[in-house]
Amino acid sequence: MSVDSAAAAAGAYALADDRPVRFLVLADGHFGPMTSKTANACIRYSPDRVVGVVDSVTAGRTTEQVLGFGGAIPVVATLEEGLALGPTAVLVGIAPAGGQLPQPWRETIAAAARRGLDVWSGLHYFLSDDPMLADAAAAGGARILDLRRPPADLVVSTGRVRDVASTVILTVGSDCNIGKMTTQLQLRDAMRARGQRVAFAPTGQTGILVEGWGIGVDAVVADFIGGAAERLTLQGATQGDIVLVEGQGSIVHPSYSGVTYGLLHGSLPHAMVLCHQPSRTTIYRNDWVPIPPLKDLITLHEAVAAPLRPAPVIAIGLNTFDLSDEDARAAVERAQDETGLPATDPVRFDPAPLVDAITRFHEARIAARG
Amino acid sequence: MSVDSAAAAAGAYALADDRPVRFLVLADGHFGPMTSKTANACIRYSPDRVVGVVDSVTAGRTTEQVLGFGGAIPVVATLEEGLALGPTAVLVGIAPAGGQLPQPWRETIAAAARRGLDVWSGLHYFLSDDPMLADAAAAGGARILDLRRPPADLVVSTGRVRDVASTVILTVGSDCNIGKMTTQLQLRDAMRARGQRVAFAPTGQTGILVEGWGIGVDAVVADFIGGAAERLTLQGATQGDIVLVEGQGSIVHPSYSGVTYGLLHGSLPHAMVLCHQPSRTTIYRNDWVPIPPLKDLITLHEAVAAPLRPAPVIAIGLNTFDLSDEDARAAVERAQDETGLPATDPVRFDPAPLVDAITRFHEARIAARG
Repeated sequence: MSVDSAAAAAGAYALADDRPVRFLVLADGHFGPMTSKTANACIRYSPDRVVGVVDSVTAGRTTEQVLGFGGAIPVVATLEEGLALGPTAVLVGIAPAGGQLPQPWRETIAAAARRGLDVWSGLHYFLSDDPMLADAAAAGGARILDLRRPPADLVVSTGRVRDVASTVILTVGSDCNIGKMTTQLQLRDAMRARGQRVAFAPTGQTGILVEGWGIGVDAVVADFIGGAAERLTLQGATQGDIVLVEGQGSIVHPSYSGVTYGLLHGSLPHAMVLCHQPSRTTIYRNDWVPIPPLKDLITLHEAVAAPLRPAPVIAIGLNTFDLSDEDARAAVERAQDETGLPATDPVRFDPAPLVDAITRFHEARIAARG
Repeated sequence: MSVDSAAAAAGAYALADDRPVRFLVLADGHFGPMTSKTANACIRYSPDRVVGVVDSVTAGRTTEQVLGFGGAIPVVATLEEGLALGPTAVLVGIAPAGGQLPQPWRETIAAAARRGLDVWSGLHYFLSDDPMLADAAAAGGARILDLRRPPADLVVSTGRVRDVASTVILTVGSDCNIGKMTTQLQLRDAMRARGQRVAFAPTGQTGILVEGWGIGVDAVVADFIGGAAERLTLQGATQGDIVLVEGQGSIVHPSYSGVTYGLLHGSLPHAMVLCHQPSRTTIYRNDWVPIPPLKDLITLHEAVAAPLRPAPVIAIGLNTFDLSDEDARAAVERAQDETGLPATDPVRFDPAPLVDAITRFHEARIAARG
């Protein structure tokens, strides 16, 4: 695997290559369904590229046993054990709040780089700017790839996406870390299986890792959030009649709402899919903020979109991973009853209700354009 | 004048010093009421520190003649003429969309630095990172101060401002470049004249220049917009019973709304003052976006604040600089009638209606806390 260096410098990664990449995922102490988002998406959507996970807590189990997917990929306790699995690269598999690199990880990453393994990272903290890691990589002949490093030539958004013919669908959420990327990837795969020409526009390090291009919109200079979203949407429109833009955060999240909001006004979606985890009642790590009812969230999203480009919420994507099958089905029915919209958990169940809603919306929009 | 270098590195500028600074403001081709925001605020709020303005278009006039304030400060055509006025520093007096430095300005700034003048800049483009300018400054023994360079240790916001006792007031707007900073500075001065203990929390390069501390929230990494706003509000609360947070952009501005929204959710105001320019009907440089009616803007702002901390809009600040006295008075009355709130132009008229509204709100809040 090689990354075109000019594209990498611009923040656009072309991951396709003849040489296979074999990731050893670093997630020590944090490997689990809710704590290793980057690792989990890579394991779910690119399991062939993962040879193992380092986590001393769950060592001895498989990713299937820890996450419920990923098959027999082993979890090992140490970097040394992981090296025996034949990786070509390590992947920093978590993205802690604030993006700082836990100090013990620096040592592990440096050791891997000295052994010649490339280092892939989606952290805010750019590993290639860390002299110790840069020295280790140089010593080992390894590369450090910071997926979140933004393009150097971003500009502010100016509504240019209004010129494209494609239908733009944005996932929004009642909270962060709730399935906005996963929903779009499930929809992408289901729509491609139907023969639809669809593009996924990645806005975070994990999506970039899965798709091979994108911009981490939370890592750009704040004035350019909208401009990054605009560029991603325009790029997606060259690849699909329907562009599925990866949402970020929530417009009611006290830490990340600025990014969420700028992404909404930069991508100017024609319609939105609202993602929610029924078991949550307050915002993740901010229990002083109650999650509003779904109907109120729909009203709020439609109200803030309207002054620039009116966009309805047309479906609900639920994340029911922590519910029984019976409770999950009840949650889907309750969401449908509460909102009057199609709903499902697109990972646990058939994503068809969401695919149908988007397809109907797209076809009606095309028909209205004549 | 000296800037504490550690504070400067952290983005917090301590401008107070025994040595007087004498600015020559660079605004060539852009000096005017609507085009040189940074220059204008410096001239309005620190006229004693400005010896002249360079602008070949309005050269020969005074700032009073061009802007309507600033007295007899002369506008000259060239840097050479300006040097005769005895400046100690040049101030880059405009902040173009996107923050890029116009190429001819680089030459002028380098020439000034080579002559030993310090360079103050609020641009996104950090002048101290420009090798040509850094070399020129080194050659002239001058310093380059990038007011927008953010602190290196920002974190995400987590609602910590809920712990402070001070009343937090944020200006919001129907558009960018409409008077959100100016309104707060007029209120600051009027409240201080009444003996109230009030702080102004600067969120942009011009406010930082005027007040002597602050963070340019549009220049931070996007994930930290809220965290920067939180830090500024906490800092302001150490200085005032009432904290006037400088607003940025607009939640209906297609380029800047993400910053505006993150600032709102990071500062968590108790109440908002809505700023508007009656003569505008569409968003600045984005005429595809109509400015919603004031009542709709109030509803929208209160709706997006409510999930985190309910905050009413309690007054309207108008910018009537381009209206006749008669039309300005009519605009104030119309805004009052439309919204049922106190309104005035706090620059043109007595800011008392806004000061009274904030004072009443603050006193009622203190009384309710017991």
